[in-house]
Amino acid sequence: MKHKIKTSWKDQMTFDSQIDNHTLRIDTVAPLGTDSGPSPKKLLLASLAGCTGMDVVSLLNKMRVPFTNIDIDIEADLTNEHPKVYSEIRIIYRIFGNELNKEKVEKAISLSQEKYCGVSAMLKKNSPITYSVEYYD
Amino acid sequence: MKHKIKTSWKDQMTFDSQIDNHTLRIDTVAPLGTDSGPSPKKLLLASLAGCTGMDVVSLLNKMRVPFTNIDIDIEADLTNEHPKVYSEIRIIYRIFGNELNKEKVEKAISLSQEKYCGVSAMLKKNSPITYSVEYYD
Repeated sequence: MKHKIKTSWKDQMTFDSQIDNHTLRIDTVAPLGTDSGPSPKKLLLASLAGCTGMDVVSLLNKMRVPFTNIDIDIEADLTNEHPKVYSEIRIIYRIFGNELNKEKVEKAISLSQEKYCGVSAMLKKNSPITYSVEYYD
Repeated sequence: MKHKIKTSWKDQMTFDSQIDNHTLRIDTVAPLGTDSGPSPKKLLLASLAGCTGMDVVSLLNKMRVPFTNIDIDIEADLTNEHPKVYSEIRIIYRIFGNELNKEKVEKAISLSQEKYCGVSAMLKKNSPITYSVEYYD
């Protein structure tokens, strides 16, 4: 299977990526850009959040574990030297629900990180990824 | 330096990532999702396009190489087995301009791929990245 995207320069540091039916504006902050969209590197973190988030939702549904909300916070350290890469990525999964089955939640997250999430599998070849889980009513 | 993003589950496979001042909707296609935003993995390719695109614009400006447009097409092959990762990523840089200095354009692209683009440096730890350049008036 192939994935294809087209990206066009607009002005200064502004680009539009055409991803299937969606146009994603990418930009950077002043003085180089005009902050009209997210900056490129952080899209890696959004990609990771979406990938593992969808896994966890799917797996919790399959395991019949009800939840009311999921927040995923990601923090990453950037190296100082070029090329500036993430030296470490930390994920906090915040799972909301009543009487959550923590064992199943942790199984779902572990399955995503170890087996299913392709974005995590790719990024961790360069950037170690650690995670923790927090529970909320 | 640290990068931080927050991502919240909305419904089904829909997530909103808060990236600084920007909210990025992430979703997947039917039957699991509602295609209300790009799918997670392809955001890696948009990240790569934006990163190398900004490098090339900056470097061409510094080199005083005028251009009228830049399109960046990216195609990536996905593995069949979980975790599904990109086994190869191919980039086509389409550079538009009159009497372009091809040597300088190729120097700019090569500097991005070999030295400056952190997204490329990270992704190529897993996925070999190749590129070609095409010129248009």
